Amino acid sequence: MSVLVVGSIALDSIRTPWAQRSKLLGGSASYASVAASLFAPVKLVGVVGTDFPARFINLFKRRGIDLSGLSVAPGKTFAWEGEYEENMNRRHTLRTELGVFEGFSPVLSENHRTCRVCLLANISPSLQLQVLEQVESPPVVIADTMDLWINTARKELLRLLKRVHVFILNDSEIQQLTETHNLIAAVKRLHRLGPRFVIVKKGEHGALLSGPNGIFVAPAYPLAKVLDPTGAGDTFAGAVAGYLSQISRLNQGELRKAILYGTAVASFCCEGFGLSKLVRVTPQKIERRVIELQQIMWV
Amino acid sequence: MSVLVVGSIALDSIRTPWAQRSKLLGGSASYASVAASLFAPVKLVGVVGTDFPARFINLFKRRGIDLSGLSVAPGKTFAWEGEYEENMNRRHTLRTELGVFEGFSPVLSENHRTCRVCLLANISPSLQLQVLEQVESPPVVIADTMDLWINTARKELLRLLKRVHVFILNDSEIQQLTETHNLIAAVKRLHRLGPRFVIVKKGEHGALLSGPNGIFVAPAYPLAKVLDPTGAGDTFAGAVAGYLSQISRLNQGELRKAILYGTAVASFCCEGFGLSKLVRVTPQKIERRVIELQQIMWV
Repeated sequence: MSVLVVGSIALDSIRTPWAQRSKLLGGSASYASVAASLFAPVKLVGVVGTDFPARFINLFKRRGIDLSGLSVAPGKTFAWEGEYEENMNRRHTLRTELGVFEGFSPVLSENHRTCRVCLLANISPSLQLQVLEQVESPPVVIADTMDLWINTARKELLRLLKRVHVFILNDSEIQQLTETHNLIAAVKRLHRLGPRFVIVKKGEHGALLSGPNGIFVAPAYPLAKVLDPTGAGDTFAGAVAGYLSQISRLNQGELRKAILYGTAVASFCCEGFGLSKLVRVTPQKIERRVIELQQIMWV
Repeated sequence: MSVLVVGSIALDSIRTPWAQRSKLLGGSASYASVAASLFAPVKLVGVVGTDFPARFINLFKRRGIDLSGLSVAPGKTFAWEGEYEENMNRRHTLRTELGVFEGFSPVLSENHRTCRVCLLANISPSLQLQVLEQVESPPVVIADTMDLWINTARKELLRLLKRVHVFILNDSEIQQLTETHNLIAAVKRLHRLGPRFVIVKKGEHGALLSGPNGIFVAPAYPLAKVLDPTGAGDTFAGAVAGYLSQISRLNQGELRKAILYGTAVASFCCEGFGLSKLVRVTPQKIERRVIELQQIMWV
């Protein structure tokens, strides 16, 4: 029941209207693997530079994350710098330095070729494909993406989509990918490109699931203060992957529950800078928020 | 169990990326009273000019709407012209002519002073107050508003808020009124201004209810094509008012159901220009969409 996670591992610098932090542990795979580790054993595939702080290695280890697939390459760790507007919904990327990711070409060990869930967290579709091709037909393949790849690697992304069971993206990304404004129409188009299940992340408006049995909509967990939403989407994907690794059959009912768990875990992510709040979350706290979410939806 | 509706009655000209219609029946009270009439007897309070087409009078009459509170004044009916952007979420007002509304000062007849639900549909807060002051302590007072009044009549609006049980507004309006970006924080602030229950309309993202028993979130009914969203918010408010006129006690459970009915009825509004689809809706069709909405939320 393990989760294999591939994605970026980064050093993030984040500015919000109220605060500023630099060299935080960031990247899609960092958030996703920590979130997934709340539910299942995680194997992390990625690369960092020689500047990567040992305390972050220890953070992963404390979560029991298998780091045998983590390469340390000569050079600098992927670095990202971003700034949030006052409403915390709009974000501007100020700087991106690929560093060691530029030459990254993952080769999976024997131990990494089998898993229950393969989570291709946000990273270039060609890297996602390269990892997926090395895994022995995983029961559940989940992929996330971002606007950059829709713009620059559409061909590879379309190739990936044919092999993904659950595709996760946000509302502006699905509009961009399908060239469709209406979300319901966009989701229908996306199914035709491959994925049986599509999850649209809508930030403060929650998430929408579409599959053969129709549509499911979950609200976001109501937070009166969002400290730093960086990584919330990756955290959501990681928790969904972790939850799904525990179930025997991928179906809409289980995906609905997975989304509630993803939503609950992502809400903790937003309450601290970087991973600071996420690493202190307990199963009891998650369960409490899942119950609250059910009460919010109950009619 | 009647609903008293006051608001605007207008002649609308609407442009969408695909079509154009002029001199449609519009205005908050038109949409709201037709929607409320699907659930309960409605008394309409408003004013039209001598140019108001008889076919629209007949439309109200066919719905059984009591028009004894509808004044016909010398001059032109309130006229509005608007245009939608391609995503159908952004709307620009091209023209507003108040016409007979400029001198409107409603005086309620004896018959109109009692009702189960008083719906103060979107119109200037001073007119809403003027009507409310003439009604004999109605068990449920619902009010809607818009950005214009938040900007130009804040003092009157704040006075109104102290006397409203259910206040309805959209997400950008609540941010504007409370000067708060975060929706959850904004709702908390709004409660302090008076209303026990607040409903935030979020368009394609559904609606949020906040009250003493916490938060409820309902999705929008999933439409793959929105033809004309004009009046959807007024329709929602009208259906909520109509539903609430049937129940004996205003509480969060009934409001949750009312929101599902409001959402279902508003979805029909979006599927036709003006009131064209709304006037053909049947109770069976509404029930079907309410059940679908419950399935979309079920977990």
